[in-house]
Amino acid sequence: MTPKGFKFSAVNAGIKKDKKEDIGIIVSDSPCNVAGVFTRNMVKAAPVIVDMEHLKKSPKHLAVICNSGCANAGTGKQGMKDAITTATLLAKELGCSRYEMLVASTGCTVELMPMPKVIEAIPKLAEALGKSYAGFARAIMTTDLKPKTAKASIKVDGKLVTIFGIAKGSGMIHPNMATMLGFIVTDASIGKALLKSVLKEAVDGSFNRITVDGDTSTNDSVIIMANGMAGNKTIKKGTAGHKRFAKAVGEVCLSLAESIVVDGEGATCLAEIKVEKAKTKNEAIAVARSIAGSLLVKTALHGRDPNWGRILVAAGYSGVAINPDKMELYFGKHCAYRKGVLFENMESKLSKEMKKKKVPMRLVLNMGKASASYLFCDLSKDYVTINADYRS
Amino acid sequence: MTPKGFKFSAVNAGIKKDKKEDIGIIVSDSPCNVAGVFTRNMVKAAPVIVDMEHLKKSPKHLAVICNSGCANAGTGKQGMKDAITTATLLAKELGCSRYEMLVASTGCTVELMPMPKVIEAIPKLAEALGKSYAGFARAIMTTDLKPKTAKASIKVDGKLVTIFGIAKGSGMIHPNMATMLGFIVTDASIGKALLKSVLKEAVDGSFNRITVDGDTSTNDSVIIMANGMAGNKTIKKGTAGHKRFAKAVGEVCLSLAESIVVDGEGATCLAEIKVEKAKTKNEAIAVARSIAGSLLVKTALHGRDPNWGRILVAAGYSGVAINPDKMELYFGKHCAYRKGVLFENMESKLSKEMKKKKVPMRLVLNMGKASASYLFCDLSKDYVTINADYRS
Repeated sequence: MTPKGFKFSAVNAGIKKDKKEDIGIIVSDSPCNVAGVFTRNMVKAAPVIVDMEHLKKSPKHLAVICNSGCANAGTGKQGMKDAITTATLLAKELGCSRYEMLVASTGCTVELMPMPKVIEAIPKLAEALGKSYAGFARAIMTTDLKPKTAKASIKVDGKLVTIFGIAKGSGMIHPNMATMLGFIVTDASIGKALLKSVLKEAVDGSFNRITVDGDTSTNDSVIIMANGMAGNKTIKKGTAGHKRFAKAVGEVCLSLAESIVVDGEGATCLAEIKVEKAKTKNEAIAVARSIAGSLLVKTALHGRDPNWGRILVAAGYSGVAINPDKMELYFGKHCAYRKGVLFENMESKLSKEMKKKKVPMRLVLNMGKASASYLFCDLSKDYVTINADYRS
Repeated sequence: MTPKGFKFSAVNAGIKKDKKEDIGIIVSDSPCNVAGVFTRNMVKAAPVIVDMEHLKKSPKHLAVICNSGCANAGTGKQGMKDAITTATLLAKELGCSRYEMLVASTGCTVELMPMPKVIEAIPKLAEALGKSYAGFARAIMTTDLKPKTAKASIKVDGKLVTIFGIAKGSGMIHPNMATMLGFIVTDASIGKALLKSVLKEAVDGSFNRITVDGDTSTNDSVIIMANGMAGNKTIKKGTAGHKRFAKAVGEVCLSLAESIVVDGEGATCLAEIKVEKAKTKNEAIAVARSIAGSLLVKTALHGRDPNWGRILVAAGYSGVAINPDKMELYFGKHCAYRKGVLFENMESKLSKEMKKKKVPMRLVLNMGKASASYLFCDLSKDYVTINADYRS
């Protein structure tokens, strides 16, 4: 069951070449408190700029509209007009202000939105609203192979509160944000400021800790909409309800993030690098990110080759002042390297770890107490095929 | 003709599996002023650590020994011992101190050097010294398809001064340093401090401006040896001779750097991104590096697809505060995007530029007066094949 009071719809507008859904909406029965986290790319797509403005201009929001096939990015003034037109037309259908709408797009950059198709689709979307989210989850996919959803339920003041997320990922997946779209809806009653802090923390621990290819897109957005229809007393900062809600939102985000990596373009396997005993959290993140982003680590992973020297190398160019004579590296429970001593004849044990569904890697820096982990996938020939021919 | 007074040799020591040369030496007839630039990776291979020490401990140097097949990196204390033994044994053959030797290695990391093979090879190397550099150029290759050399000659005070460089590259190619080995020999007479500043500047404008895969290795070294046998008056700072010498060393380095990119693992084409009118040189470099390193730009290049939105996207996440409404993007002389306006129907013109031998890309930021450029290659399926199966 999705959270109370949210409806979904999706249609094929002909933006993408295939006949699948390529535009969808999520609409709440009652106005929502909404928070968003957006790409830090300086080149922001038009819908991102529009959303940031709408979040400032209106205290409440009612709906989000998202299309795939065209990212409306690098499209200048015309792109801004098109995103605003999209919001305005949907608002008209729903009988509210355009500032209560949020817009998202994903797909090719530097192509203008096929607006006649979008304009034709909007009334159909409003018409088709219903309980099923499956069409919407498919409509936001680009090279994703599978729709991605996650759900959590908690009790707050005896009331059932549900958190439900839909995401798309696949290529251009890297922190700040992990390039992707995520829409999280909840019937929780929670203030806007607290909702934003919960979302930010959840994104930092999930979408910002995954990498497919190191590219940060112009369109990354994670939006959370809370309509309060669960009937709980408004969640306050520091309460048990706050903690449970934050934990549940974190779990939904982490589950979506993991689905994104598993379904990374061309990915055949998943790995997790945990960096432990770093001086600071930021240093742990930087080392983990450097390892997760290394093409040599990712190709070794693809070949299921425990060529762990590449992990040390990537740690070495992370910008963090690590000390190889203090470090330890583990694959599962097997130590490959400890404080300047490498263990020979470990090949078969390490190889076995490399064949696990989620390859477990752990680098202990022995410089402090902070830790962080990153999820990543391998780099395969299919990634190249997908991205060399993406537009054709 | 190579510079006066330098001899070369190379043999097959059996470090690599094939029967080609895998260890070589360069020896000068008379002691050299030497300067080196080394990897900024915190995990430095044993030979790099040894070289940095030897450059401090001895005012002059006589020879360099380099092997492929084993990088002697991540090998801890034993690796240090092995690098020192190698230097010591060569010094014994040449009748000098081990501190006058420089050592370099390239190949697999985290494997110990097969020292019996190295020990057996060293007297043979000393025996085989001669004028031909071809064996040495082959001996330092890993996945390189071709040996890489470059040469320049200038006149200083009426004397012919020759600068000759040998390099290897292929994978793990990215600035700080561009992961590679470069050995430059010259018969110029020039002081050690000036030689170092000339080398640093040349490397910054060449090897540090190329990228194949974004990985910075543990072994990167560029070493320049000047034996003064050209008989010129010692080159002084700020003189015309200094300028000519610096220009010639710069050209040799740039030519070697370009050969490295052309021969990048799996590369099928070369591109240059020039970033112009940036606020500062460092900002221009950061934007160019971000574009040159983007997997999406590299795969588009592989498909010869002028998907230039990916260039804007990569500029956007460079960390530099660029403004898309001020930017212009050109392929050759064709403008794809200018200050928020994208040009449609440019596809066929841009596609033609993408098929050039060196694809010319130019991003004008219109924020200042600084510029910088980067050379890079495409990302192909062969890169994945090479690196997924490197050790097998």
